[in-house]
Amino acid sequence: MTVRADDDAVPTEHTPPPRRRVESVVLVHTGDGKGKSTSAFGMVVRAVARDWRVGVVQFLKSGKWQVGEERVCRDRLGVDWFAIGEGFTWESEDLSQDEAVARAAWEHTRAMLAGGEHRLVVLDEITYPMTWGWISTADVVAAIAERPPTVNVVCTGRGAPDELVTLADTVTEMRKVKHIYDTGVLAKKGIDY
Amino acid sequence: MTVRADDDAVPTEHTPPPRRRVESVVLVHTGDGKGKSTSAFGMVVRAVARDWRVGVVQFLKSGKWQVGEERVCRDRLGVDWFAIGEGFTWESEDLSQDEAVARAAWEHTRAMLAGGEHRLVVLDEITYPMTWGWISTADVVAAIAERPPTVNVVCTGRGAPDELVTLADTVTEMRKVKHIYDTGVLAKKGIDY
Repeated sequence: MTVRADDDAVPTEHTPPPRRRVESVVLVHTGDGKGKSTSAFGMVVRAVARDWRVGVVQFLKSGKWQVGEERVCRDRLGVDWFAIGEGFTWESEDLSQDEAVARAAWEHTRAMLAGGEHRLVVLDEITYPMTWGWISTADVVAAIAERPPTVNVVCTGRGAPDELVTLADTVTEMRKVKHIYDTGVLAKKGIDY
Repeated sequence: MTVRADDDAVPTEHTPPPRRRVESVVLVHTGDGKGKSTSAFGMVVRAVARDWRVGVVQFLKSGKWQVGEERVCRDRLGVDWFAIGEGFTWESEDLSQDEAVARAAWEHTRAMLAGGEHRLVVLDEITYPMTWGWISTADVVAAIAERPPTVNVVCTGRGAPDELVTLADTVTEMRKVKHIYDTGVLAKKGIDY
């Protein structure tokens, strides 16, 4: 073992990286706990408070955010809200139809991202159609990577693909510590939906 | 080892607990990741969408939710908002003053919980004054446990005390997977505050 004479030259503290600003960020909320979509909608309120134009695309028709939330976001907060299946007759027995609807939502999203009119775009539960192979993870990652620099993006859903995690600036896993459902309690209106 | 003759009697599947309804729930958002407060505010939007009366108490003056969020919640969503330090001259150098302000916020909270007029009460960043010993964890847990049965409660903050976790119905840990701050990027208006 070599003993260094100049001990003062050995850093004893972690040097933080130089501080910098970015124009926009990509966030991912994943994991099996609560709060992935709810936190994204809290971010909607924050963005609205900054007078940002906000867009939301729901990728699951049975998402946590339903008619009431959509109404509040649209009417009171002025959010551009695109719920999957709009303009479609949803046939839940028909997987090819589900896939077509997810693809249409993605095309809408791609245009919204590229348009650059929104400072915040929430892609709620987008991980599921990626996981199911209905929309291409590579396409999603590319469209987010190539967005106009003013557009912030939040993606939610369990099982975020590695490529999306790699692209994202900030990734949070919502981890279930305990959940009342496990004790047999039913989902509650106002709290869970 | 005893071999049972009646193998059919051995359960091979987990039996779910009987389903039941509760009038209200207590949720805790803890951990070092993002989304604890933000998710609580998403719940505010959800509750407002159900026409619930909502109360928010901020226990940190430098909380993530600031003037803009407070304005949106108060003015557009009709939330009863109590920011710590209201009516006080805050002297951040004076710990005894900080403690007095936290205690006053807690007295306000205790009355709000007991009053039963709110279907949702958010106690934002309440874990910190508990951790610092400024308000009694036992008092907080007792007041929540004894609340009118219609009042749902959400507590946020790192390091939730065990007694609060035990009392809570649902506990979520927001775990940091990666965070852009670690690369030197500064907090962004509209996203982080």
